[in-house]
Amino acid sequence: MAQTFEKKGVTKKSENFSDWYVDVITKSGMADYSPVKGCIVYRPLSYAIWERVQDFMNPRMKAMGVQNSYFPLFIPESFLKKEASHIQGFSPELAVVTIAGGEELEEKLVVRPTSETIMYTMYSKWIQSHRDLPLKLNQWNNVVRWEKRTFPFIRGSEFLWQEAHTAHATHEECWQQVLDATELYKQTYEELMALPVIVGMKSQSEKFAGAVNTVTLESLMPDGKALQSCTSHDLGQNFSKAFEVSFQNKEGQNEFVHQTSFGYSTRSIGGLVMVHGDDQGLVLPPRIAPTQVVIIPIGTDSEVLRTAENINLALQEKMIRTKLDIHTEYSLGFKRNEYELQGVPVRIELGQKELESGNVSVAIRHSSQKEQTPIESLGAYMPNLLNNIHNDMYDKALKIQHNLTSVANSYDEFKQIMETKRGFIHAHWCENADCEAKIKEETKATTRCLPFDSVEEKGTCIRCGKDSKHKWLFAQAY
Amino acid sequence: MAQTFEKKGVTKKSENFSDWYVDVITKSGMADYSPVKGCIVYRPLSYAIWERVQDFMNPRMKAMGVQNSYFPLFIPESFLKKEASHIQGFSPELAVVTIAGGEELEEKLVVRPTSETIMYTMYSKWIQSHRDLPLKLNQWNNVVRWEKRTFPFIRGSEFLWQEAHTAHATHEECWQQVLDATELYKQTYEELMALPVIVGMKSQSEKFAGAVNTVTLESLMPDGKALQSCTSHDLGQNFSKAFEVSFQNKEGQNEFVHQTSFGYSTRSIGGLVMVHGDDQGLVLPPRIAPTQVVIIPIGTDSEVLRTAENINLALQEKMIRTKLDIHTEYSLGFKRNEYELQGVPVRIELGQKELESGNVSVAIRHSSQKEQTPIESLGAYMPNLLNNIHNDMYDKALKIQHNLTSVANSYDEFKQIMETKRGFIHAHWCENADCEAKIKEETKATTRCLPFDSVEEKGTCIRCGKDSKHKWLFAQAY
Repeated sequence: MAQTFEKKGVTKKSENFSDWYVDVITKSGMADYSPVKGCIVYRPLSYAIWERVQDFMNPRMKAMGVQNSYFPLFIPESFLKKEASHIQGFSPELAVVTIAGGEELEEKLVVRPTSETIMYTMYSKWIQSHRDLPLKLNQWNNVVRWEKRTFPFIRGSEFLWQEAHTAHATHEECWQQVLDATELYKQTYEELMALPVIVGMKSQSEKFAGAVNTVTLESLMPDGKALQSCTSHDLGQNFSKAFEVSFQNKEGQNEFVHQTSFGYSTRSIGGLVMVHGDDQGLVLPPRIAPTQVVIIPIGTDSEVLRTAENINLALQEKMIRTKLDIHTEYSLGFKRNEYELQGVPVRIELGQKELESGNVSVAIRHSSQKEQTPIESLGAYMPNLLNNIHNDMYDKALKIQHNLTSVANSYDEFKQIMETKRGFIHAHWCENADCEAKIKEETKATTRCLPFDSVEEKGTCIRCGKDSKHKWLFAQAY
Repeated sequence: MAQTFEKKGVTKKSENFSDWYVDVITKSGMADYSPVKGCIVYRPLSYAIWERVQDFMNPRMKAMGVQNSYFPLFIPESFLKKEASHIQGFSPELAVVTIAGGEELEEKLVVRPTSETIMYTMYSKWIQSHRDLPLKLNQWNNVVRWEKRTFPFIRGSEFLWQEAHTAHATHEECWQQVLDATELYKQTYEELMALPVIVGMKSQSEKFAGAVNTVTLESLMPDGKALQSCTSHDLGQNFSKAFEVSFQNKEGQNEFVHQTSFGYSTRSIGGLVMVHGDDQGLVLPPRIAPTQVVIIPIGTDSEVLRTAENINLALQEKMIRTKLDIHTEYSLGFKRNEYELQGVPVRIELGQKELESGNVSVAIRHSSQKEQTPIESLGAYMPNLLNNIHNDMYDKALKIQHNLTSVANSYDEFKQIMETKRGFIHAHWCENADCEAKIKEETKATTRCLPFDSVEEKGTCIRCGKDSKHKWLFAQAY
């Protein structure tokens, strides 16, 4: 079996958060730095997590009527320029092909940073009548955004994501699609990744380049910085006008379609590691863990091996993803360390002693606790245990978020929080972009969103004192 | 539901094969031309076929110990140059990024045409000991080869594929991996796509750029041209020496690893269409068809609708992929045409008349036949029917191949076959590259492979008359 086992030597999470993070992802075999600036290698562990995300989202997207497809990697430069704010937003980070097949290209080709412009060129051809609507296509692909400062999974020059693009006859339907996508993303974070999120609207300056409005899911990392975890855009008719995507309605009149786009990327894997990981390495929530339970027989006694195989089968019958580790080249201590580092939720060891007692000790990764369990009842016990672990991990993550969430009633208070623990801050803001820019300049905090559950109330902007209707969510962002 | 229904107007297959092919793939909604030269859009129908390929191959590759992963899209130009024949083979068709993040790059980045060089750079870091072997990684990704002449699916400037790359301690193990990969590919073609293939070794001039030997699967298209359908390469130590991928063996000595790479691409979809399609459009073998059975209720009678729903459920219980089409905006005739064009293997229509008789007529796409079947027994009947359809389609394809396969005992005979029906030709060849080149120049036929089942026999090269040990397989290639 090909496994690059490395020594632990993981920096403590409390000592240096970003060193800890890089240690965990590289030493666990999640990822490695590649020779290409800002691009990582997704090793089998992280790619298997990504496949779990695909398995979770694909049937749910299909139920929304979204179909998978694939569009070209390259976009003619002129296409990107058709929607003014779109090109403005993406132009600093484009990678550009100028030579192909040994010749200088007449028109440069941009490596897609996102696919609105190439997809909508085709939509304009395919959509003619109201009967062609809604059109809902998704792609699982790679995109390139040449970033100056990169950080594995969180911000990369190339990353993997899904990008769905829908076209609708009415703005009402379009907005409903944005909400449906947001709900799917919330489920993916909460039910698959055991990560709590705050859902809300982006400010006008923080929205997607080309959108009318952007709905965002924001997560809080244990170092007090926020992660914009995925977004769904109401594109209105901005792109349909630029790309002439129109249809004949039931009354025979021509109208521009209303569009959405929404994306969920491998950045989510970064959040997963940051929130759940500990000083021993990765801690994976059971539903996303490629291996949920590892079974390690101690020694080579044939009765022990047979029992381990039986446990393995009993768990697989319950649809649990198991690994039976019968390698003899590595010591028990080495294996324990390795599976802790890789974040396997549950570890079962069994030897002669366990055979005699009829009980095994089940080691639970996230709590470092052990539970004595009769071998016979493991099959019945494990699905519940895995569910409980998921719930415990979600609760723990929610507690981290709560502990790092504050309300600031004055700018002094706001600044003090930002200088100490950071985290999410609820504070009144006048919704003026200048004020927003100055808050960022002075405190590093940006508006993350106007949470959907924010209640309207009279208040004054923490910075300028002008009237404000809502407390917005602020944080320093990754 | 978003469906771009288009008029049929498909060219006859017998009249103009390539026009027919393009008509079928564009009008069925498989693919569309994009504004980027040589790049197509994989619309939902072809992408769903590709997902079926992934679903078929993934568990089988996993059983071989191959793990999925993802490596960067970009390869520094210098990496590609490390293996001399590799860069020579790929250099004419590279797409090159020269500008990124608004700046001219110091070292140009090539968009991967294949990933040997970037992957083996990492392998060199990861592999140290015999305990790290074998290392078997696969990627499902996009690659770019800037082709002068493109043809949808068959030859594109960008295409999708899987590329697996393995490293082994011995050449014996490495060669076994090549054979195992070949067997998997053969299964995929025969058992999933209902396409017969010929398996054999490439000649030295036709092998992969950088390989010691290449094993190929060759399919024959109904126009008498051969399609190189996928390949598995024995890379020997060519790349491991160039990229310094070495390991300490059990005796403590340093050795270079032995490597393989093998790939299966969306080109296979082109072969699928060409062999099985007919004048009515696509014909999909049941195991790869995204929709296996479409059920069309006639009219809006509630009893008819309820029966259609029951049939749908009964088939889904048998794990059959169904579609229940209750749209009222399109006529029955329109729907029939559409599903024929899209190649759905089985169509069931039912109305008042069928309800009364208790029988439905089951329309079978590939044979254009109809079978009267009791509604009650559809669930039991359908899995067998689908299996029979698969077998019939395979047999039909094999017959096409047999009818287009000849033996040439002289060069005159060889040339005459190439001028008339083309197809596969078994003929003696001296294994000299000059002779091979001249045969190509004079007849357009290239050596496709030395079939694994070719028996050693005394003969003389059809062109130069020198001694020959085997009949090789020749054909004009796509």
